[in-house]
Amino acid sequence: MEFTPHPGFVLWFTGLSGAGKTTLARAVEAELRARAMRVEVLDGDIVRQQLTRDLGFSKEDRDQNILRVGFVAQLLSRNQVAVLAAFISPYRDTRARVRAQTTHFIEVFVDAPLEVCAARDTKGLYARALAGEILHFTGISDPYEAPEAPEIHLRTDQLTVTECVQIILSALEARRLLPPAR
Amino acid sequence: MEFTPHPGFVLWFTGLSGAGKTTLARAVEAELRARAMRVEVLDGDIVRQQLTRDLGFSKEDRDQNILRVGFVAQLLSRNQVAVLAAFISPYRDTRARVRAQTTHFIEVFVDAPLEVCAARDTKGLYARALAGEILHFTGISDPYEAPEAPEIHLRTDQLTVTECVQIILSALEARRLLPPAR
Repeated sequence: MEFTPHPGFVLWFTGLSGAGKTTLARAVEAELRARAMRVEVLDGDIVRQQLTRDLGFSKEDRDQNILRVGFVAQLLSRNQVAVLAAFISPYRDTRARVRAQTTHFIEVFVDAPLEVCAARDTKGLYARALAGEILHFTGISDPYEAPEAPEIHLRTDQLTVTECVQIILSALEARRLLPPAR
Repeated sequence: MEFTPHPGFVLWFTGLSGAGKTTLARAVEAELRARAMRVEVLDGDIVRQQLTRDLGFSKEDRDQNILRVGFVAQLLSRNQVAVLAAFISPYRDTRARVRAQTTHFIEVFVDAPLEVCAARDTKGLYARALAGEILHFTGISDPYEAPEAPEIHLRTDQLTVTECVQIILSALEARRLLPPAR
């Protein structure tokens, strides 16, 4: 299979649990694959299995988790892979550290109000967090530091997945990171 | 910069400390870059900084270390990156697990007698291990399980670096993993 050369980049999806990070990453992945690009999706479920099984959810452990992902994202993106990273990544300074070591870092703020995320409760986690069964739950018992100047800001309670994907693809196009569809 | 497409593979250098793993990986790296290939060298110094700072040298920790590296090597190699991994990786079953999850896995046994490695003592570690200052030191106080059927077996006490590199390049060529030199 032949691949379209492109410079490689990291689309970093940050936001609350249930905001739609992985859903958007997977939808963008399909679009990029249709353009014969090399793509890897990294998300919490994959990474905490393979790379960071030892880590919990304290600030220190979350930071370690994100920095390890940042290292992998850097390795991949500098080899012309499009990396779609979907992590709550609640701390601004940690995201900034990952940004600093990546050439094309595009922060995507996947934004939906806490009430909306809690109502969706895709994984049943909010119910458990509100019942006090999960410590360190972002938005409930742990902080979420929203991006101050993300490259892309998506209100997923107001936009459809397709609309969000279009916005992301346009942003990639504007940066000449997207080859034409075949 | 344009890159030559190739299927991606993992050259896994295993052997005692001081056997010449990183030296060979760096020498092969130069050859592959001269062929405009995408290459990443992973070795203990890099990885224990970025990925596994939490881990020590017990069997369990060493295994975790290698499995994390294996995950990263898999991500890179399936995106057509040549991965040169240089790790003592003393346990046979752990190397087998990494092999099982990688498409083109080429085990390179970097073999020199313990006495030769200890005499070289590139990092001054053998002196400290023999003085009892380092616990879990492979070859001294910890086992090294030599590969039983490595794709490549190099006696680095009998061959020059250049000779070793030629053997590795020939093995890649035979597997159609090496584009012609430019």
